[in-house]
Amino acid sequence: MIDQHIASAFDRDLEEIQAHLMKMGGLVENAIREGAKSLKSRDEELAEEVRKADRQIDALDMQIQEECARVLALRQPIASDLRTVLTVMKVAANLERIGDYAKNMAKRTTVLVHMQPIDGASGAIKRMASEVRQMLTDALDAYIRRDEELAHDVRHRDLEVDQMYNALFREFLTFMMEDPRNITSCMHLHFIAKNIERMGDHVTSIADQVIYLVSGELPDEARPKGNSANYEVPSEDTSEAEA
Amino acid sequence: MIDQHIASAFDRDLEEIQAHLMKMGGLVENAIREGAKSLKSRDEELAEEVRKADRQIDALDMQIQEECARVLALRQPIASDLRTVLTVMKVAANLERIGDYAKNMAKRTTVLVHMQPIDGASGAIKRMASEVRQMLTDALDAYIRRDEELAHDVRHRDLEVDQMYNALFREFLTFMMEDPRNITSCMHLHFIAKNIERMGDHVTSIADQVIYLVSGELPDEARPKGNSANYEVPSEDTSEAEA
Repeated sequence: MIDQHIASAFDRDLEEIQAHLMKMGGLVENAIREGAKSLKSRDEELAEEVRKADRQIDALDMQIQEECARVLALRQPIASDLRTVLTVMKVAANLERIGDYAKNMAKRTTVLVHMQPIDGASGAIKRMASEVRQMLTDALDAYIRRDEELAHDVRHRDLEVDQMYNALFREFLTFMMEDPRNITSCMHLHFIAKNIERMGDHVTSIADQVIYLVSGELPDEARPKGNSANYEVPSEDTSEAEA
Repeated sequence: MIDQHIASAFDRDLEEIQAHLMKMGGLVENAIREGAKSLKSRDEELAEEVRKADRQIDALDMQIQEECARVLALRQPIASDLRTVLTVMKVAANLERIGDYAKNMAKRTTVLVHMQPIDGASGAIKRMASEVRQMLTDALDAYIRRDEELAHDVRHRDLEVDQMYNALFREFLTFMMEDPRNITSCMHLHFIAKNIERMGDHVTSIADQVIYLVSGELPDEARPKGNSANYEVPSEDTSEAEA
């Protein structure tokens, strides 16, 4: 009887925390969408909104970390319950980082609107951001449904994002070599592309956590890497940081 | 009597985990040193060693995370003991990221040795890496000694690293504009500089954790930022990710 009471108290706590996690996920998806949109439409006001919205994301992360610590102390979960709480903490940390990258995209937008646009760059970046946002939606769905297959699917799609980044990197190099006046804006655009690629790594890390939660094992470290054979652009390997 | 027994079992566990954390810290300090050295002396073999050594760092992180999870489940610590375990998990994650950035520096070194060197760049990068390494040494000392003052000192020194990065960014821009043949190598050097700046952010995050551990409160979010007034180079704000 007592055990049952304790178990359901934990479940209620966890449900509440997970609701906050999903809210945070929604805000981060929105930040990616609006961040990329502000770059494409050269909309400084929208960029400013994205920057401001990041405070809410940071606050939710703090709240979730504290709630998790409280549940650990109060309910002292073990086995799979403990694993779930630790996973929530990691997923929230990943979301927070993705939010930071979106904010950074918005910051660079406010710089880039004052420079000559680079042909086709913001459209390509928007497509890349769109792909990552869809991956995030699916990774969070996979978490809620404990859907290991969907999580594996998300991991594989990160390959595409890496390829998009590599293509953009080459394009920016060409623009810079053609005309030195493009160099500063291309550096900013390159950073934005790199940050979106990093968002993809964090989404992949969320997918990894789902796989761990369901199967008890992290996927093989040798995840597909779009630029593994690419001598010119060594991968950042930040993805491994969360694995 | 029983309580005392439980308490000392926790202390023994924690001591062991902290020993692993310090070992990890030593390996990461070494990776920063050797990574920067391999770039400066164009030593591909040393760079390869740094890349390989990162596997040991990753393995230690995994081990520490697992040991912490086990202690949480087995000893069910509360209050400041719980806080300490959660801090160890975060510090290990920070160290693992710093290790990844050092590995990335080594990876780019193996690319850069085949290109025309950029005057003075690798020396400047080595100085920057050296500063970050010293900050890391002090942050880990501050953790062990629960030295809040030293932790605050580390946070302030990150300002210098940010300034070093800004200076290098401008220098690389100049080199690229002078001669388009410098563009590819400057992009790599710029990424290395940016990654060292990020290492500094992670060291700052370790210092933040020490302050939290001692005082129960995280330092004011408004930490000194070297490039806050810099319109051309918006800060990456990844530092906030761990705050």
